[in-house]
Amino acid sequence: MIIGATGGIGSAIARALAPAFDLTLVGRDAAALGRLRGDLGAARALGADVAVELEVAALADDLPDIDVLVYAVGAALPGALVDADVAAWETQWGANVWGFALTLKHLAPRLAKGGRVLVLGARPELSAARGMAAYAASKAAVDGVARVAALELRRQRVSVTVVRPGAVATDLWTPLGGAPKGALAPADVADAVAQALRAEPQPELPIGAGAP
Amino acid sequence: MIIGATGGIGSAIARALAPAFDLTLVGRDAAALGRLRGDLGAARALGADVAVELEVAALADDLPDIDVLVYAVGAALPGALVDADVAAWETQWGANVWGFALTLKHLAPRLAKGGRVLVLGARPELSAARGMAAYAASKAAVDGVARVAALELRRQRVSVTVVRPGAVATDLWTPLGGAPKGALAPADVADAVAQALRAEPQPELPIGAGAP
Repeated sequence: MIIGATGGIGSAIARALAPAFDLTLVGRDAAALGRLRGDLGAARALGADVAVELEVAALADDLPDIDVLVYAVGAALPGALVDADVAAWETQWGANVWGFALTLKHLAPRLAKGGRVLVLGARPELSAARGMAAYAASKAAVDGVARVAALELRRQRVSVTVVRPGAVATDLWTPLGGAPKGALAPADVADAVAQALRAEPQPELPIGAGAP
Repeated sequence: MIIGATGGIGSAIARALAPAFDLTLVGRDAAALGRLRGDLGAARALGADVAVELEVAALADDLPDIDVLVYAVGAALPGALVDADVAAWETQWGANVWGFALTLKHLAPRLAKGGRVLVLGARPELSAARGMAAYAASKAAVDGVARVAALELRRQRVSVTVVRPGAVATDLWTPLGGAPKGALAPADVADAVAQALRAEPQPELPIGAGAP
């Protein structure tokens, strides 16, 4: 199951995993989700806004056990702290943190024994830039949720991995004026994820070294 | 200015700083705040719920420049991720993160040149325990906000320090079944803070070594 499957990194991961997995694609953009499902011959496409608990809870209905859960939803809206906008913070938090926590709440019980959770994190030394307080804080929060989730899901033999790529060239950068030079391609991240899924689980999966 | 001045750590810090500073105490519990003001002969006591933006904004009215801003508000409500309760998450987030961000938004412009911000953080290796996802995540988020705040306030020559004590024996532990053995006394944290304010600013102030 890939949550945020129509995003830059999510769709690249969906493409990379399609040959080997029976994919369930989850996203907010129903049209894009439908197209991606057709392209990849994915088994399922489920529309949901992960910041809305009822929509996340509904994902658990009529689903086979999940072997791999990838959380690739993300939002970044820059703004200095002195101009902090509560709505912009909530958008980022909903996408980056609440969505992940709600996903674990409702879907962790559906994870197969030995299953794996992968979530997109960020490197603090790259994300902590002027204007990025909400983003940096929300990605740091993802680490906290992932750390505790790893402890709580150990009994289920489920592992939790935080994927920490360098800057990746996706639409996330649009409000920031475009991706930095040397940004990774989403396909690079997807390849690393696909490779990691063939290896033993690790708590962290750092990818690339590009600084923004 | 001490925000969260009636809390376990906040009130200890207020006591430790009272002899040397013209104190402004901020808290949600008006009665406790009034008593503390009387005890310490503090210059000002202002009631505010820091999770409510209008109340934080009002703090900036009719205030002299702030030399030292201590953010000591904190909440911890345990719960496994699979039982995650949105209201409990919001309470913790409001106290630990939004309040801090809103404080910076509205009070950073009132900080004196060379001023200092201190915020209570947590050590990830101690806070990331089963049932503590919201707390661990929100304290990790505090780090993210503090890191970016340090960059954004550099022009004002304001420093930001994350104070990371080990476990401290306060009411925060009540919903967790009491403070662990070997927990620090709030006065130990307060002394370390008072001492740090006499020294050069550091990005981190670790105190004690007790594990929960």
